[in-house]
Amino acid sequence: MSEQRILVTYLTQAKDLSKKAAAVAVGMTVGSWTDLPAAKQAELQPYLGEAVSATPLETLANGETRGLITVSYPTRNFTQDIPSLLTGIFGKLSMDGKIKLVDIVFPDSFLAAFPGPKYGIEGLRSRLGAQNRPLLMSIFKSCLGLPFDDLKTQFRAQALGGVDLVKDDEIFFADDRAPFLDRIKAFKQIALETEAETGKPVLYAANLTGPVHELGEKAKRAVEAGADCLLFNVLAFGFDALHRLAQDPDVHVPIMAHPALAGAYYPSPDYGIATPLLLGTLMRVAGADLVLFPSPYGNVALDKMEALQLAKNLTTPLVGIRPSFPVPSAGIHPGLVPQLFEDFGLDQIVNAGGGIHGHPGGATAGAKAFVAAIEAVTAGRTLQEAAASSSELAIALEKWGGGR
Amino acid sequence: MSEQRILVTYLTQAKDLSKKAAAVAVGMTVGSWTDLPAAKQAELQPYLGEAVSATPLETLANGETRGLITVSYPTRNFTQDIPSLLTGIFGKLSMDGKIKLVDIVFPDSFLAAFPGPKYGIEGLRSRLGAQNRPLLMSIFKSCLGLPFDDLKTQFRAQALGGVDLVKDDEIFFADDRAPFLDRIKAFKQIALETEAETGKPVLYAANLTGPVHELGEKAKRAVEAGADCLLFNVLAFGFDALHRLAQDPDVHVPIMAHPALAGAYYPSPDYGIATPLLLGTLMRVAGADLVLFPSPYGNVALDKMEALQLAKNLTTPLVGIRPSFPVPSAGIHPGLVPQLFEDFGLDQIVNAGGGIHGHPGGATAGAKAFVAAIEAVTAGRTLQEAAASSSELAIALEKWGGGR
Repeated sequence: MSEQRILVTYLTQAKDLSKKAAAVAVGMTVGSWTDLPAAKQAELQPYLGEAVSATPLETLANGETRGLITVSYPTRNFTQDIPSLLTGIFGKLSMDGKIKLVDIVFPDSFLAAFPGPKYGIEGLRSRLGAQNRPLLMSIFKSCLGLPFDDLKTQFRAQALGGVDLVKDDEIFFADDRAPFLDRIKAFKQIALETEAETGKPVLYAANLTGPVHELGEKAKRAVEAGADCLLFNVLAFGFDALHRLAQDPDVHVPIMAHPALAGAYYPSPDYGIATPLLLGTLMRVAGADLVLFPSPYGNVALDKMEALQLAKNLTTPLVGIRPSFPVPSAGIHPGLVPQLFEDFGLDQIVNAGGGIHGHPGGATAGAKAFVAAIEAVTAGRTLQEAAASSSELAIALEKWGGGR
Repeated sequence: MSEQRILVTYLTQAKDLSKKAAAVAVGMTVGSWTDLPAAKQAELQPYLGEAVSATPLETLANGETRGLITVSYPTRNFTQDIPSLLTGIFGKLSMDGKIKLVDIVFPDSFLAAFPGPKYGIEGLRSRLGAQNRPLLMSIFKSCLGLPFDDLKTQFRAQALGGVDLVKDDEIFFADDRAPFLDRIKAFKQIALETEAETGKPVLYAANLTGPVHELGEKAKRAVEAGADCLLFNVLAFGFDALHRLAQDPDVHVPIMAHPALAGAYYPSPDYGIATPLLLGTLMRVAGADLVLFPSPYGNVALDKMEALQLAKNLTTPLVGIRPSFPVPSAGIHPGLVPQLFEDFGLDQIVNAGGGIHGHPGGATAGAKAFVAAIEAVTAGRTLQEAAASSSELAIALEKWGGGR
């Protein structure tokens, strides 16, 4: 396989998967092939897609085979951005029967055009001075419509519990009661105060919103106001908006990608874009330093294999592209920390909302329970052992269970 | 129902649809309700979503009911843009089990913030001087990798057949052999030449690509170079990119929305966003003058009810928002024109690729066959009658059939 080709894998079904792969390879590139005169073929050959493989998985009742097909595309077919890539490999194909986009493997030459995370795992650890442990993030209980003072109270309570990051609600767009830049300044001040008390810094991730062509300017104003981190609804704004923020040297803060709207793409077995690609590879390549995704626990959980592959896609070595922090989210309480550690290892962010605010002792106690749980698993102790010296953790385990 | 609320309908399943609607109404707005103190409830009441209705459609084997739920959201919860809207009504909800976003009804006050089409149906008809008939559009046979001269030859052949518009391939991003502005200038010149010959103007829709924050500037350069129309992969770049182009007074050309990637959202019965909303309401509100969507004919057709509802959403009266031209696409040949006319009426664009280039007499003859077919149905004649005076149409009907 040439260095200059992009390998794209689809899950689909057909009478003959190999023929389907060949049809996609032609249909998504030069349009037609066998009926072209030889001179035209010679001219278009450099742009022609190629069927690479077809892997049957099961025979369906209608006689078709369901399986994976891989097609390679010349990098010259694309401009070096995700709209071109997705349109070129899945634009009209997405509307052509049962087909799901599941994986993309890039040649280094193509990856070189993408920013990837500006900070990534190491950069964020270094900002926080937090090595060799999972980080801890907490979410406001709610943001919409709350008076500014309530948000300040919430921020302080979470920070005092020892979390590493606090993030806005992703639906926090209409923020006239606590405007974006004012929040950034106010929470920065509170963070300095709580750090003086706890000895731990805390970063605030403010939700970056606004007209797409003004996001760069708004992000720069946020940085000038002292922003630590920006939350961004990548799928609502498009991957290219993330790419351009990540690429901008003046936007020198980590970007946290929220998965809002991802469920419009990934859950169907037959259609859409698989999570390891959508929230893993593409988010990372486009420049997300941290990526939230549905955890494999809780009520409506992501399939565990998918969640693990997603995290792997965020962290596996890629030439010139830093790893992104996986943030498995939803349904997280302190008793789950050993499971999280077993599944996602050191390089993850433990992210809780209800698991912090729902603590009987309040958000500060809720955060302390998580801090104790994370310290325990990192040191190879059980939560039961740790609960002996953390009443907050003991109470959390009593409420939510867990804690091997 | 207050004027200031947005009505959102979802297709979902639950033990109790009414309870599900109530849970969505709270969960997507203030987060929690019954456990809030009365003073907090009073404060957050203006931001609270409300369950409006629950309509059962069928009882499932697992005892759950599948059906439609409608929730109303206060407009104050959103900034006036589609990323805020979609994140706020479907962001995390999209990842919460089987749920599909199917319809949005806006109050006039919220719609007023959106540009809608700058030209719309009447504006485009007026540019073309083409009243009281469906328009005709033709697609390049392929674009990728072709020498500029081949594209010029293709453009001229299509234009000489009497089409109203010619559009780029949507995958045409890497265009170094026939750069964007050069194409616009060259095809403008050819269009003037063919108009002198045929008496009919023809508009060229050039594919607008590039970094999302530079699209406005690039579109303006296109207009200065004489662009007639811009093709735009809206879903690849995000609805807000369309909104900002449509809103920009300097981008004074119609914008044609391509549905590339739409199949990642709409085909599942359980997940995603329904086509009448995705390619209908949202494309129109964000400012598409013309909207391509999969026709209900051909191999992989859109469900006919969905296609008709989509076209209706593009054209039904909305305060302050012009109607957009429906462009049902794929599988279109001259014999289908009576069916197209019956289904979509006068205000549509007949759009063909293979149905023009595959004509035994070539693209010019292919276009002439369509022109004859459109003239016939508009005048209330059968295609068989029209074929008596159009050898191109007679040949097309022989090849593709149809033609009541």
